[in-house]
Amino acid sequence: MASFELIRRLAKSNGGKILLLVMDGLGGLPREQGGPTELEAAHTPNMDRLAREGAVGLSIPVARGISPGSGPAHLALFGYDPVEFEVGRGVLSAFGVGLELGPTDVAARGNFCTVDANGLITDRRAGRIPTEVGEQMIALLRSIKLPGVEIELSVEKEYRFVFVLRGEGLNAAVSDTDPQATGVAPLPAKALKPEAAYTADLINQWIDRAREVLKGQHPANMLTLRGFAMDPNLPKMRDVFKLKPACVAVYPMYKGVSKLVGMDVIQTGDHDSTEDEFRKVAEIWDQYDFVFCHIKYTDSRGEDGNFDAKVKVIEGVDAALPILLDLKPDVLIITGDHSTPASYKAHSWHPVPTLLWAPGVILPDRAQAFGERECMVGGLGQFPATDLMPLALAHARRLEKFGA
Amino acid sequence: MASFELIRRLAKSNGGKILLLVMDGLGGLPREQGGPTELEAAHTPNMDRLAREGAVGLSIPVARGISPGSGPAHLALFGYDPVEFEVGRGVLSAFGVGLELGPTDVAARGNFCTVDANGLITDRRAGRIPTEVGEQMIALLRSIKLPGVEIELSVEKEYRFVFVLRGEGLNAAVSDTDPQATGVAPLPAKALKPEAAYTADLINQWIDRAREVLKGQHPANMLTLRGFAMDPNLPKMRDVFKLKPACVAVYPMYKGVSKLVGMDVIQTGDHDSTEDEFRKVAEIWDQYDFVFCHIKYTDSRGEDGNFDAKVKVIEGVDAALPILLDLKPDVLIITGDHSTPASYKAHSWHPVPTLLWAPGVILPDRAQAFGERECMVGGLGQFPATDLMPLALAHARRLEKFGA
Repeated sequence: MASFELIRRLAKSNGGKILLLVMDGLGGLPREQGGPTELEAAHTPNMDRLAREGAVGLSIPVARGISPGSGPAHLALFGYDPVEFEVGRGVLSAFGVGLELGPTDVAARGNFCTVDANGLITDRRAGRIPTEVGEQMIALLRSIKLPGVEIELSVEKEYRFVFVLRGEGLNAAVSDTDPQATGVAPLPAKALKPEAAYTADLINQWIDRAREVLKGQHPANMLTLRGFAMDPNLPKMRDVFKLKPACVAVYPMYKGVSKLVGMDVIQTGDHDSTEDEFRKVAEIWDQYDFVFCHIKYTDSRGEDGNFDAKVKVIEGVDAALPILLDLKPDVLIITGDHSTPASYKAHSWHPVPTLLWAPGVILPDRAQAFGERECMVGGLGQFPATDLMPLALAHARRLEKFGA
Repeated sequence: MASFELIRRLAKSNGGKILLLVMDGLGGLPREQGGPTELEAAHTPNMDRLAREGAVGLSIPVARGISPGSGPAHLALFGYDPVEFEVGRGVLSAFGVGLELGPTDVAARGNFCTVDANGLITDRRAGRIPTEVGEQMIALLRSIKLPGVEIELSVEKEYRFVFVLRGEGLNAAVSDTDPQATGVAPLPAKALKPEAAYTADLINQWIDRAREVLKGQHPANMLTLRGFAMDPNLPKMRDVFKLKPACVAVYPMYKGVSKLVGMDVIQTGDHDSTEDEFRKVAEIWDQYDFVFCHIKYTDSRGEDGNFDAKVKVIEGVDAALPILLDLKPDVLIITGDHSTPASYKAHSWHPVPTLLWAPGVILPDRAQAFGERECMVGGLGQFPATDLMPLALAHARRLEKFGA
């Protein structure tokens, strides 16, 4: 695997245009012994043609056996080793709802929960309250003020929110208050380093006030915080890969990760369809060298455990694909950030079907369709997801030769 | 991938004999959609038989997406990580024209260029003057003498030449004078470390004199120097791999890299054919444990963009192969250092078809022929080129067991 520094050295600022289409949680499993996976079951004439003309393989998001979260999985696709460049959950959530983080701000992901009369958690997600109820709770919490710092709150979705502490002298080395279990009380925030004592103390003060504020509410009568983190100040794609990158995504989380690596985040509607997103890509295509387009619902239907619905999402993407093909990208990559098999109902560790298409410069393989088992014997082999970006740059002729 | 140090620890000085046949730039691409690559198109009954009896795979010269120069690509085949053991441009160029480098000599790659009346570069390659004109300019420059050092100059090709400074107290930590742009003057050589001040000063003195000497010439009225480097003093194959290695190659560049890793370089004629080279291998076979044999013209015809001619070179190698097979090597590897697809006319990043044949100890695969697509599903998988040497040693039974 090429080091980040080697790629930085060889990348040049001209060459072809790259389109990275990510179907979140694309990889799947057969529903029954001997059956097809979601991608294999889907009728995808466009992707199958691209697979015949291009090369396929399986990408390994973080390492064999590791089921990644969306943040690390996307960082890997963008060429950043997600273990080296670890981004805290709080930061991903803050970016996800469009909050800006100053260099000394600390962010955390919050969950509303339900506690009983003894303060023990009975529901870690407060009955999955609708987003509007979450908004009402946040409005109540905004009344809490602490000396010397500002607090910013924003609902992510349903019971999930973002907590940002803004001020001087803050430190994110603070433990989660979410015990990740029911029947126990939320934990106090603890400083994991002496320098974080002031921050932990502020957080505990805020939580005590929040407990009072939420006391009469139901079911969201308490909250937990986790993933305290600061902006990791990642190298930007423009500087490392020498290209102008943009992100077309509907969900805030993916916009956030894209912003972290310096992509321009294109405005989208909350209910944009695949076609809407692809048309947005077409609108901005002339202005960028690299466009990342993110489709969420493959993952959502996988998490729901709905095999057929996930197949339908994939088929919808395939049907809309001509909008992207009309742009004549020099390099088109179709992949997932990780697998979310419907039978598993969660992110999994299985390697992810990947299709690389680059007319004229690709070494084609014998794959006849886009699916897990064709990818197993494809020309790309099995490879770390972080190698995808160097491959994309190479096929776009954006890398200098190494050595004489 | 086994570390260099692990292999050094396990290598033993007895065992079988290894023959490494490198067809430079072997990997290719289909000429048209759905067609064969150069190697697939070539009629290669001998290699196809070896592929059936042995195992095939694809080697990755440096890292996915990286197009290597010949120097790093060969170092990798010899088992040296080319990123860790980076050899300066000047050294590769010096070796390339057959110049010897003493332990204190500094070499650089030079370009003739054209400057205007104000000394600003108008053409970084002096109109790509033919090699004969380059020779005339070099003859003029040979008149320049500096006290305490010797200067050796040699044309590489066209506007490219090699500059070698021979003497005591020299240091290669000197910046390029090539600004890699037009509209600006060549840069002065700057010492990047205090110990290189004397060297930088000598280089600048020489450049000032060169400016005078070339003043009336056109279009080659100035020059730039880059890639100042000294012999990197690499570990030698004898010490690391515990074998006696030899190189049979026609082009100086490959002899140079082989010398860097301590191979005995066998004398060849400038116009030796594949058969001549193979007969040379046969002549010296008894005296060595490891023979590297290099065929240049697969790469040359690839760079020319001549698909059919590259196919012919491959067929010629196959036809001559019985000369090598008669030697009954314990391990025979047939591969390339990188790909040079005729359709791409340059070194590329594509993984390289590799054949490993070792009667009695190889795990054979299902490959029926030697070609890119058979290699994609071959028993060697896709692997870093630096793993080839450990594999060769293992199949030659030249590696001790690791641990008890």
